[in-house]
Amino acid sequence: MDSSPIPSTAAFSDAERDALYRIMQTRRDIRHFLPTPLPSDVVRRILEMAHCAPSVGFMQPWNFLVITSLTIRQQIKALFEARNAHEAASIHDPARQALYKALKVEGIVEAPLNIAVTCDRHRDAPFVLGRAPMPDTDLFSTCLAIQNLWLAARAEGVGVGWVSILDKTAAETLLQVPPGVALVAYLCVGYPTEFRPQPLLQEVGWKHRLPLEDLVYHDRWGERYPL
Amino acid sequence: MDSSPIPSTAAFSDAERDALYRIMQTRRDIRHFLPTPLPSDVVRRILEMAHCAPSVGFMQPWNFLVITSLTIRQQIKALFEARNAHEAASIHDPARQALYKALKVEGIVEAPLNIAVTCDRHRDAPFVLGRAPMPDTDLFSTCLAIQNLWLAARAEGVGVGWVSILDKTAAETLLQVPPGVALVAYLCVGYPTEFRPQPLLQEVGWKHRLPLEDLVYHDRWGERYPL
Repeated sequence: MDSSPIPSTAAFSDAERDALYRIMQTRRDIRHFLPTPLPSDVVRRILEMAHCAPSVGFMQPWNFLVITSLTIRQQIKALFEARNAHEAASIHDPARQALYKALKVEGIVEAPLNIAVTCDRHRDAPFVLGRAPMPDTDLFSTCLAIQNLWLAARAEGVGVGWVSILDKTAAETLLQVPPGVALVAYLCVGYPTEFRPQPLLQEVGWKHRLPLEDLVYHDRWGERYPL
Repeated sequence: MDSSPIPSTAAFSDAERDALYRIMQTRRDIRHFLPTPLPSDVVRRILEMAHCAPSVGFMQPWNFLVITSLTIRQQIKALFEARNAHEAASIHDPARQALYKALKVEGIVEAPLNIAVTCDRHRDAPFVLGRAPMPDTDLFSTCLAIQNLWLAARAEGVGVGWVSILDKTAAETLLQVPPGVALVAYLCVGYPTEFRPQPLLQEVGWKHRLPLEDLVYHDRWGERYPL
């Protein structure tokens, strides 16, 4: 047994590891933004970090539409409002419906910029190494880039909120996304009024955090793993 | 204009931010592993970080199957080999096919453990806040957890390799994953022989890194954004 299994190129200090973990633990989905513009070097660094995410067959299927136009953000906001009314109406329990309606779930217009993250489903066609057996791994790769973006933003003191309550096709049309390219995430980005200690949906009692030990199995589904 | 737009709760130092960026930049898809077992506290921390990823409606749709059984890993390896032969045969260009066949693309049996990450597509059914308009956001959330896992592993000096060259249904059956739960990622996890300076597919000339400026647009698809 090698007493020093970690190659020297792998070395991060305990302090660096702990910084990563605090960045992950204090990242939030942000809906309350300050109007302060983001410096261009901050935007560039966040996108650079997104771009160094892993991707199946190194296909790098992502694009980033940085949206500053107030007109476009207002049009997106209208798509959100139409769909959100439909969502609220679909909740049968009156207390849950009231709680839902009281929640602020997006900051499309208040945030100084929005970023639409897309996936080009034809990039490198026809052969992408490793993609054919699981064709959605291009979408999955795009999500890995989104998490890099989200964490990089947190380290910069910048908040990100993911808006999924949108008609996807209408949003794609509005952003002039070409056929074969899919909108994966519509993000609101800016300095937040605060990073609260807990996720908002936990704080307001919508949903609690699941115990990790209930989510981890050993070798086969259902067999307890000793964490 | 507030001269100090970043709330105090948001503060990470430049050194902490730079640590995050170096973790992201030096993360690799690893296929060459040392047999050294992973300490249980390392496995626990990596899973804890995966579990603090964001998820649509805070649904936390993920499960993690930690696979140490050599028998199961050998069965998964057999699924890989069957599918990989099919993949190689599908490459028409002889030089590309030869390059593909020379590549090592997985470390299923050599790595001390594998982690299968799944998504429970019925968790919190029927109403998940924000999911109905974009139903695949549960899969996307699971990918955000995978990137947290991958980065946490890197900070611990641990390598991760994503194996997508598998028959998904056969792998789900082997792992006894119940109906309604989808295998999203099959990961090989362990100390690597090294973290190389570049992604392997770049190093061997399979694919280059795309220029970021070609991937970023302003307001609408196709309009250049000044990075």
